[in-house]
Amino acid sequence: MQPKKNELLILPLGGLEQIGANCTMIGTNGDWIIVDLGIAFYDSLGIEVLTPDVSFPAKMLDKIKGIFITHAHEDHIGAIQYLWPKLRCPVYVTEFPAAVLRQKLKECPWSGDVEIRVVTCKNPIHLDNFEIEYVTLAHSILGACGLYIKTDAGTIFHTGDWKIDEAPLLGDKIDEKRLIEIGKEGVDCLLCDSTNVLVEDEAGSETHVRQALSRVISQYKDRRITVTCFASNIARMETVFHIARESGRKIAIVGRSMFKMISAVSETSYLSKEFKAGISSIIPEEDAVSLPPSKVLLMCTGSQGEARSALFRLARGENRVIKLGKHDVVVFSSKVIPGNEICIRDMQNLLTRNGVEIVTTATEDDIHVSGHPSKGDLVRMYEWLKPKSFIPIHGDSVMLHAHQKFAEQNGIHESLIVESGEIIGLSNGQLQRLSKIDLTFMALDGQSLIPITHDAINERLTMSTGGSISVSFIVSNDNRLLNAPDIITRGIFIDRGEAKRLESRLYQIVANEVTKHPGSVNEIKRECVSAIRKVMTKQFDKKPAIFIHVHRS
Amino acid sequence: MQPKKNELLILPLGGLEQIGANCTMIGTNGDWIIVDLGIAFYDSLGIEVLTPDVSFPAKMLDKIKGIFITHAHEDHIGAIQYLWPKLRCPVYVTEFPAAVLRQKLKECPWSGDVEIRVVTCKNPIHLDNFEIEYVTLAHSILGACGLYIKTDAGTIFHTGDWKIDEAPLLGDKIDEKRLIEIGKEGVDCLLCDSTNVLVEDEAGSETHVRQALSRVISQYKDRRITVTCFASNIARMETVFHIARESGRKIAIVGRSMFKMISAVSETSYLSKEFKAGISSIIPEEDAVSLPPSKVLLMCTGSQGEARSALFRLARGENRVIKLGKHDVVVFSSKVIPGNEICIRDMQNLLTRNGVEIVTTATEDDIHVSGHPSKGDLVRMYEWLKPKSFIPIHGDSVMLHAHQKFAEQNGIHESLIVESGEIIGLSNGQLQRLSKIDLTFMALDGQSLIPITHDAINERLTMSTGGSISVSFIVSNDNRLLNAPDIITRGIFIDRGEAKRLESRLYQIVANEVTKHPGSVNEIKRECVSAIRKVMTKQFDKKPAIFIHVHRS
Repeated sequence: MQPKKNELLILPLGGLEQIGANCTMIGTNGDWIIVDLGIAFYDSLGIEVLTPDVSFPAKMLDKIKGIFITHAHEDHIGAIQYLWPKLRCPVYVTEFPAAVLRQKLKECPWSGDVEIRVVTCKNPIHLDNFEIEYVTLAHSILGACGLYIKTDAGTIFHTGDWKIDEAPLLGDKIDEKRLIEIGKEGVDCLLCDSTNVLVEDEAGSETHVRQALSRVISQYKDRRITVTCFASNIARMETVFHIARESGRKIAIVGRSMFKMISAVSETSYLSKEFKAGISSIIPEEDAVSLPPSKVLLMCTGSQGEARSALFRLARGENRVIKLGKHDVVVFSSKVIPGNEICIRDMQNLLTRNGVEIVTTATEDDIHVSGHPSKGDLVRMYEWLKPKSFIPIHGDSVMLHAHQKFAEQNGIHESLIVESGEIIGLSNGQLQRLSKIDLTFMALDGQSLIPITHDAINERLTMSTGGSISVSFIVSNDNRLLNAPDIITRGIFIDRGEAKRLESRLYQIVANEVTKHPGSVNEIKRECVSAIRKVMTKQFDKKPAIFIHVHRS
Repeated sequence: MQPKKNELLILPLGGLEQIGANCTMIGTNGDWIIVDLGIAFYDSLGIEVLTPDVSFPAKMLDKIKGIFITHAHEDHIGAIQYLWPKLRCPVYVTEFPAAVLRQKLKECPWSGDVEIRVVTCKNPIHLDNFEIEYVTLAHSILGACGLYIKTDAGTIFHTGDWKIDEAPLLGDKIDEKRLIEIGKEGVDCLLCDSTNVLVEDEAGSETHVRQALSRVISQYKDRRITVTCFASNIARMETVFHIARESGRKIAIVGRSMFKMISAVSETSYLSKEFKAGISSIIPEEDAVSLPPSKVLLMCTGSQGEARSALFRLARGENRVIKLGKHDVVVFSSKVIPGNEICIRDMQNLLTRNGVEIVTTATEDDIHVSGHPSKGDLVRMYEWLKPKSFIPIHGDSVMLHAHQKFAEQNGIHESLIVESGEIIGLSNGQLQRLSKIDLTFMALDGQSLIPITHDAINERLTMSTGGSISVSFIVSNDNRLLNAPDIITRGIFIDRGEAKRLESRLYQIVANEVTKHPGSVNEIKRECVSAIRKVMTKQFDKKPAIFIHVHRS
């Protein structure tokens, strides 16, 4: 593909098929920048983390000018710790994400090599063919910015995740003034967050959450309160500090991730008086349990039912110090992220079974607000930026299509639904599909990153439904079977009678194949697999993985 | 446990931990009846269906007087085809569930042995110590009844699944008059559906759905419409017939389950004129594709994203005749059943990716109503029956606790949250936990029913996350290792360099263990497993299943 001059290229590597793994490449005149490098959470076949596949940029390192991070959520920043060694270019971030990133990289042996360039809004970065300006938006984390990307070939505004919050409690308000100016300067293409395009009205404010949480918690004066929320939502954490102080409760924090975020925010200018006071009033878990329930407020992560989270550990009774029971109320200051429904419900069932009362947005309004734009927020962004064209990002196919339709209804007629790997040309505000590169997602498997389509992962799926059978035997040099085959099954239910029948059936099969294919171990193996597969399907209605060991003696 | 005279026993075998597998035993003076015998859907480790564990009643067949089915949904009737041979007692059902059951049992070799006794409302069944009366309620299926169970020791009202529908289109309205009478006669304990206790207002009517679906479908005059709903909702199917006729569209039905239900309803008195006309207007898939989109309405199951359903097959392009694309609109006349969120979203993403427009309750009101009681319905049931005590059923722990709280707020102060296997005594309207039997759920694995806690299923979990490694070697009679161990891995990612290192490491381990434990094959195996586990954890951060074959030569 030979890009034209005066053409901007947009190449998403993730963020369009599922929640997370956000990553978009923007190119012009042969140079590229990367916007965001996030992970997606996965919960199957031993895989917990997916990253984008960066083999395309990794092949042209001299052309990759930098990684630009919009904000510090895992789905935007979380893959740097796995992929940076393949890219080895500077990482541009604002103050808070920089603090978070430094902490994440601590455990990486190559962390000293990473050039983290801390940038500020209103000070565009000039970089070869690009001018990149960070613009303050609001989100459920501090320091979330959109990127205004100017090139000779045109301009792009990339929102990252955002919403409008008129009173975000911590951090700046959305920079409406600058957005209007940018709209006047001219945006050729808007790449915009699609998460909540199906939600009516406005996203709502952290200030409302403070009021609602305060009201709800005041109803449980005699009970111990646990608030669960995302560790990265610093404003929310400040709210919990505020309510604890207001209601005369001491704060104990359960789990490490909140302490990490506290330490990150402490390095920044966002550290408010209220937050500082909150930190200094934290007591250890051991002290919390010796206070009356009415005097304690616990704060922890785990609102998404993550199996190893502080809250799920509490639900399973695995916290050595704190046991939740009838005198406890757990307040979910959180939403259900799609995909986590079952885990969250399992955890909530466990909590209620132990007598804990749970409070969620299902029954209490406003104890959480989303960090993503509802229809009302989106319309305002369209009005500010007046983009000539539009690509919905950050969402699955249903969301992207809904967003395209919604933008169309609001006067944005030039748009494309894009899949990961598609290279889109932007020229004079017109979008065009140019080509598609081969792309997958990478799965973090133990210490390795392997394609999610790798045989090893498919084999686990086979074994997870069908179990395994391993058969080992010895063939003499004159092609006789020397023993009854040794059979081991795992994950297959066989009663004794069936086991006997299976053994003698497999003995026959093996003896038969050894005779039929003298001298060819591979052929014996292949034919044994095929015959055993038939027997297993017929006798057990199961398709196990089959291992054949043949020894020569 | 020696039950007292004048004591009723309530023993749930399922329906309290998850959606489905509903089954409750009711006993008095040594005799028992079983209310419902349903399955739960499962989607993991090769298991798709769970049933209750009936080993307790199976030990005292002479005491089990009958199985009483409240309605024909799988989670209430679906386990008969697996468990009846263990129970071998008469099955009592009303007309429509009888037709469904007969069809389900067709494939069972023992179906001729099942005594299906078709009962009618207002005609109580007298059975030793029990008098059981079916009372018409409403639900999302025809012929859903509650059971009014009278004994010398007290009375129970078991709702099964129900709601209030003032205009259900097909079938009778809820028998409010009889319920008020029963309330006057006196209900010692109410067992009541908890599914929608967190939902405000009333459940709503099938009549509203007809209006809403008609309105929505009329907006897509030029497009082909597919409506997906449950096959068992005969009123909904009639609505689709009605709309097809109204809008001049021919009906084609995709998938077998709807034809089965049509055949079941055709055996009953519920067959309405509209439904009959609808059936006669059905055209084959082949004919549907030759008509213009505006003249076709497809109806299919698969609203829950079941992998093998008609709709998911359409989404994957696996239907040989019909291909969905840009001229198609799929209307989900259904809710998201908890647990199915991910599958449904995957399917909807696939559909939209193919250009299909989808319409769901997320954006269109009233195109589905639930079959379960909202708070408004529940309050009316409490008022009608005025039960002395209350056990919430049909729900997970969160729902059961919410239901207990809601009933308490509405004046029902005597209640218990019960777990499967708990035997509850009911005496003079007082509930008491008497004892608990050991109980599990049974998983349908191929052709076998095995406890969900069985090793075979745990082993699949191990292999699904960690893969497998199988090692085979020959030890001579004088305790020497005769070959390099043959190693097979599955589901483990190993690059070439690692494979070499692993091979030589395992060679060492095996040789070492053979030398250390001469003569003891079992000890060699055990120690090899332990040493290999260490290597795999260290080298790959993985915990595979480990198979060791030792041959003697």
